[in-house]
Amino acid sequence: MHTPSTLSFDGARATVLDQTALPHRRDTVTLESLDAVARAIRGMQVRGAPLIGATAACGVAIALRHCADDAALAEALSVLAATRPTAVNLHWALDRLARLLGPLPTSERAAAAAREAQRIIDEDANTNRRIGAHGLALIRAIAASRPGPVRLMTHCNAGWLATCGHGTALAPVYAAREAGIPVEVWVSETRPRNQGLLTAWELDASEVPHTLIADNAAGLLLARGEVDLVVTGADRVAANGDSANKIGTYLKALAARDNAVPFYIASPSSTIDFGCPDGSAIPIEDRDGEELRAVTAPDASGRLQTVHLAPASTRTANPAFDVTPARLITGIITERGIASPGTLAELFPERP
Amino acid sequence: MHTPSTLSFDGARATVLDQTALPHRRDTVTLESLDAVARAIRGMQVRGAPLIGATAACGVAIALRHCADDAALAEALSVLAATRPTAVNLHWALDRLARLLGPLPTSERAAAAAREAQRIIDEDANTNRRIGAHGLALIRAIAASRPGPVRLMTHCNAGWLATCGHGTALAPVYAAREAGIPVEVWVSETRPRNQGLLTAWELDASEVPHTLIADNAAGLLLARGEVDLVVTGADRVAANGDSANKIGTYLKALAARDNAVPFYIASPSSTIDFGCPDGSAIPIEDRDGEELRAVTAPDASGRLQTVHLAPASTRTANPAFDVTPARLITGIITERGIASPGTLAELFPERP
Repeated sequence: MHTPSTLSFDGARATVLDQTALPHRRDTVTLESLDAVARAIRGMQVRGAPLIGATAACGVAIALRHCADDAALAEALSVLAATRPTAVNLHWALDRLARLLGPLPTSERAAAAAREAQRIIDEDANTNRRIGAHGLALIRAIAASRPGPVRLMTHCNAGWLATCGHGTALAPVYAAREAGIPVEVWVSETRPRNQGLLTAWELDASEVPHTLIADNAAGLLLARGEVDLVVTGADRVAANGDSANKIGTYLKALAARDNAVPFYIASPSSTIDFGCPDGSAIPIEDRDGEELRAVTAPDASGRLQTVHLAPASTRTANPAFDVTPARLITGIITERGIASPGTLAELFPERP
Repeated sequence: MHTPSTLSFDGARATVLDQTALPHRRDTVTLESLDAVARAIRGMQVRGAPLIGATAACGVAIALRHCADDAALAEALSVLAATRPTAVNLHWALDRLARLLGPLPTSERAAAAAREAQRIIDEDANTNRRIGAHGLALIRAIAASRPGPVRLMTHCNAGWLATCGHGTALAPVYAAREAGIPVEVWVSETRPRNQGLLTAWELDASEVPHTLIADNAAGLLLARGEVDLVVTGADRVAANGDSANKIGTYLKALAARDNAVPFYIASPSSTIDFGCPDGSAIPIEDRDGEELRAVTAPDASGRLQTVHLAPASTRTANPAFDVTPARLITGIITERGIASPGTLAELFPERP
C-alpha cells in the first residue's frame, strides 16, 4: 500500500503535492504564507474536501506566525474562506480554529493553531481508516455473495490524494485490498479537471486493478450489470442527506438507481453540514471556462503544456459540483458507520 | 445559415470534410478508392450516422468503377459493412445498393450505383428539412408558452456535419432560427471524441447562441430548470423505440426524466431498424482506448498534435454508444412526424 503524503506540516510550512502536475509529474510545493495557501487551494494544487480543510487549518497557523492579533486572525479566516465555496470542510476547519483561537491571548494563538492543524490532519487520517472499515463490510458482503472481484465505480478522486489518510470513497477499496478481497475499480475521467486520472494514478501506485472510462460510459456499464456498487466522496452533505459532490455524480446516482445498483457517499462528519437543511442551500462553485476549453499535458520532452480544444471565444458554463438528492443515495459511509440519508443525524446526536 | 458541404460526389470521387481536424482546421479529403472510403469512416474523418450511410453508398459506386462483377460488389459491401457496427444507416445504405445492383448487368452497375448514391445524398438533405419542420413545432410551442429563448440541450453532433443536409437533432434549431424564434443550445463536450466541439463550431458558423458544457454538467442544468427540451440524434433505433446513440445519451435521458424535461430522438427512417426488436439486440462498438488517453489539439504554431492525458499503460474501456430505453423517450422526430416510441411502426406501415 502506497504511503500517503499529500500534506506535511512543521508549524511554519505546509508541504503539499502539486495535484495540477499529477499524474504527469510528482512535484511538491512548500506553502509559507497565507497568500500561498489560498492560491494553492483556489488553483486546485491542493484539492479534495478533507485535504482542503486540513490545508486551510495550516494556512491559519502559518498566517498567525508573525502577527496573531484579532485583525490578522479575521483576515486569515476570511481570505481562506473565500477560496472555494462548496466544500464545507474548509469552513468546518476554519470555524474550529476560530472557536479555539478567538478566546486565547494573542501570544498563544500561533502555537495553538499549529497544534490544532496537526490534530485535524491526524484526525482525518483516523477518520479515513474508520470509513474504510465500515465500507469494507459492504464490499465483503458482495464478495461473499458470488465469485469474482467486486466491481466498484467511483467518480472524481476521493482517495488518498484528497485527504490526509487513505481517502474516503477509496478507503474501503484499500481496506479490501489489505483484507485480500479482490476489487476492481471503474475510474471515471471526471471532466473537466480529469481528477479520474489522479484516481487511476493512485490506484496504480497501490496495485489496485482499475479501468479508466469516459464519464459518459457510466450508464452503459451500470445497465450491463458490470458494476456492483458506486461509491463517491462528497464536498458537502446537507442535513437531509442531499450531497454535493463533483459535477456528474448526480448522473451516476441516477444510472445506479435505474439499474438497482447501490449508490453510496463516503463522507467524514466534517463534510456534513447540519446547518444546511437540504441540497438547495448548498452553494455551487462556477469555475473558469478555460478548464473546459484547454487541457494540460506533457509535450514530447515531458514539459507540461496547455493545449486548447476549443477557441477562447467559445462560451462555456462550468459548474464544478452537482447535488445528488438523498432519495438516490443508498447510504452515507461515515466514521461512525453507515446511515441512510434520513437517519444521518442519529449518528451524530451532538451536532446541531 | 451556413451552407452544408459535408460530402460532394462526382461519380468517381467523394470529397468530404475531415472531421478529425475540426474545429481546429477545415480540411477536405478526396476519397477515390474503396479502401480510402472505409478508412475515412473507420477513422471518423467521416462521422454521423446519416453521413456514414451516404458516404458508404459513394464508396460502393467508387469501388465498382473499374470492376463491377459479383465478387467486386460483394467485397465492396463487406469491406464497408465492417467499418462501424452500431450506426444502422451504413447497413441500410449498403442493403439498398445490394438490392438495386444485384439484379443489374455488370456493365450497368457502376453508373446505377453512382446515381443511387447521389439519390441517398439528396434524400438525406430532404429528410433533414422535414425533421426540422416537425421539430420546429415543438420549439414553437415552448416559445409560445413563455418569454425568452428556447433552451435546447443536445449531445454529440447531430447537425449538418453529421448529415448531407441541415442535420437531425439540430435541424429544428436551424428551422427555428429561420423562423425567427430565439433558441439557445447547451452543447455537451461528448468525451472521448469531443464531437460537442463540432457542434459548437457549426452553431457558431450559423450564429446560433450556444454554451459548451462538460458532459457531467447536464444533470445540474436540467435540475436547475435551465433546459426546456433535450434533442439528440441516434445511430440505431430499435422497433420498440429503444435508441442507441453516442455514449452518454442515456445519462441525459435519465436526468431529463428525473426533472420532467421532454427528451426527443431526431432520427430519419434510415436510422430505424425494424428488424431489431429492442435495444439489447443493438451491437455496441468498442473503440481504441487511445481516444480516452490522448487528445488532438493545435500546438503554438497551429499544427495539430496529439498529447497524452494518461499513460499508455492505463487500462481503458471505451464503448462508443449506449442505449436509451424507449420508456425515457418522449418522442422520436422522423421525416414523417413525431411518434411516441410505441407507435413508431404506425408512421412506417410499409416497413417490416
